Amino acid sequence: MSFFQLEATSGEARAGRIYTSHGVIETPIFMPVGTRASVKTLWQEDLERMNAQIILGNTYHLFLRPGHELVEKMGGLHKFMSWDRPILTDSGGYQVFSLSDINKLTEEGVTFQSHIDGMRHLITPEKSMQIQRALGSDIVMAFDECPKLPATKETLRTSMELTHRWAKRCKTVELKEHQHLFGIIQGGLHYDLRMESMEGLKELNFDGYALGGLSVGEKNEEMVEFCKKFVPAMPKEKPRYLMGVGKPLDVLNGIKAGLDMFDCVLPTRNARNGQFLTTHGPLNIKKARFLEDQLPPDPECSCQVCTRYSRTYIRHLFNVGEYLAGQLISYHNIHFYLQMVKGAREAIFRGEFDDYYKTFYNNYTTNRWE
Amino acid sequence: MSFFQLEATSGEARAGRIYTSHGVIETPIFMPVGTRASVKTLWQEDLERMNAQIILGNTYHLFLRPGHELVEKMGGLHKFMSWDRPILTDSGGYQVFSLSDINKLTEEGVTFQSHIDGMRHLITPEKSMQIQRALGSDIVMAFDECPKLPATKETLRTSMELTHRWAKRCKTVELKEHQHLFGIIQGGLHYDLRMESMEGLKELNFDGYALGGLSVGEKNEEMVEFCKKFVPAMPKEKPRYLMGVGKPLDVLNGIKAGLDMFDCVLPTRNARNGQFLTTHGPLNIKKARFLEDQLPPDPECSCQVCTRYSRTYIRHLFNVGEYLAGQLISYHNIHFYLQMVKGAREAIFRGEFDDYYKTFYNNYTTNRWE
Ligand SMILES: [Zn+2]
Ligand SMILES: [Zn+2]
Repeated sequence: MSFFQLEATSGEARAGRIYTSHGVIETPIFMPVGTRASVKTLWQEDLERMNAQIILGNTYHLFLRPGHELVEKMGGLHKFMSWDRPILTDSGGYQVFSLSDINKLTEEGVTFQSHIDGMRHLITPEKSMQIQRALGSDIVMAFDECPKLPATKETLRTSMELTHRWAKRCKTVELKEHQHLFGIIQGGLHYDLRMESMEGLKELNFDGYALGGLSVGEKNEEMVEFCKKFVPAMPKEKPRYLMGVGKPLDVLNGIKAGLDMFDCVLPTRNARNGQFLTTHGPLNIKKARFLEDQLPPDPECSCQVCTRYSRTYIRHLFNVGEYLAGQLISYHNIHFYLQMVKGAREAIFRGEFDDYYKTFYNNYTTNRWE
Repeated sequence: MSFFQLEATSGEARAGRIYTSHGVIETPIFMPVGTRASVKTLWQEDLERMNAQIILGNTYHLFLRPGHELVEKMGGLHKFMSWDRPILTDSGGYQVFSLSDINKLTEEGVTFQSHIDGMRHLITPEKSMQIQRALGSDIVMAFDECPKLPATKETLRTSMELTHRWAKRCKTVELKEHQHLFGIIQGGLHYDLRMESMEGLKELNFDGYALGGLSVGEKNEEMVEFCKKFVPAMPKEKPRYLMGVGKPLDVLNGIKAGLDMFDCVLPTRNARNGQFLTTHGPLNIKKARFLEDQLPPDPECSCQVCTRYSRTYIRHLFNVGEYLAGQLISYHNIHFYLQMVKGAREAIFRGEFDDYYKTFYNNYTTNRWE
């Protein structure tokens, strides 16, 4: 059986299946982020209940704490955190460049100081592979350089070329038999650089291709336009992953462009700030207008939270700083993303993705509750 | 049907049933504390799953935020927090005396400043009843004065007599039809004061009697000895409640003395500090010895946490500050208390409470894991 099976298309939007030894992932899919082996505030049971098919773990964070050797000794990340569905680990690149204190970038790799204890570490492409092999994730990401934006085209080219040489080195490292390696396409918003990056990676024959370095400061319209133009040129027989993106409409636009996989910390991070998502747009539970509002967070949602708890109650919890506020909103928000991509998948099978897109978009931007 | 039915005894230990319009409570019972309409870090579903039969809400906290008028307008505390099993509310007395900044104590009541915003409030016995009536709890506690310890016998007598006059005033306030009012016995460790307090309250014919002002600074042995001597003299046909107590062995000693109801914040508060309870005593997950320990928190526990998650994983979560650490340990710890009192109840029916007590006590103090 091939790793990826394309099942249906509707316009550029695609529905497919990714086969891993920990189960099948039905695409398009949103992957909740379990940075440090936990999707913040949720039990693994919660994720199962809302049918999360795959979660993401962060190599950078797990490398620092508890350390990949420990995770491997405990039987790998799946066993360690008691999650037997698929896991994707990122390469650590993004966090090394965005979170750590001092970077020394050479051909060999990156030297950085831990944001936790200031300890100095060198991460190379080989090291990233070793860490991810020890973690035992189902999908492993190649180690890439993520230049800070804005950057000149020359900087982006240099970076893209380094990422390519690193990708080659990643390919030389033997992973565990059940693991699949994705290459990361870089090149900013430059179509020609991105094409060059992708062509180089295609020669290395990765199991999937990701777009890195997007949603990192450029205008949202620029990202949408870029994806619209670029994604249809990506290999059709491999999963296409838009890394670290994004808000619900970003994910929806990504699906429309032909992307299959998405991840983002927003649904849980924003939840802890009181933002909950509804069919009619995002709202903040802190608002005074919810003081006596006995509706569920989203009256059109059928999740465990919306079938039981009210806005007035959750607002109170948030207001007094009860943990449960963040727990409930996080659950609802991730459920919201999962339902959105599930609806998109069903619409693609019906050949009606454009209708789904328009309805979702129009509803989401009405601000009915504002 | 009477409010309380005594079903069995084993020595002084009692098993019984409390009938409320939100369901039956099988005693002896431990009541998880839901201070601000949430048992910290747990969903109401979690409490149902572990068969919590009744929870406690704090009048002082709910009065300040979100306010009892709002809760009443939202349909009462049960509906507000979506919990349809019994609820007991305390009187607010304990928190007024322990948390608020400035108290002016008069015959009328207590003036205090909110620990949140410094606002000045007057709580009288009548006001406490009005608040608890608005909250709609099943069991309402009379408003009592809780003197700071150590205190002279004279101070304790003055306080006890005031508490008695306040109890009378509480009795004059009409509650909702489904509500039951408990009187609170004060008098420190003085048997004669406590007896006088109880005799006074008995004349007012409360639905149950609570021991207040224990576990507030005296030696543990003193409390145990006092209960052993005093509790058998309490009315047999009414529930007996030991307020705010305590650690597992305190609860067990309370049951042995003939008490029926217990509440304490320790299982959730200590959980957030990493302490988890086991059959063989309390442990702290932070200890280095748990680094590679793949056992569940308590290998003899059958809760949702212990059947799935390991010490090494929870230690990691705690170590990196993940919310899930506190959530998992809180769940296990409350489950532990509920199983302990359930085991006690079963032993009482078998007439073997002393055996149960000895086995539990011996196991709990072995420190096998230390
Ligand atoms: Zn929902
Ligand atoms: Zn357990």
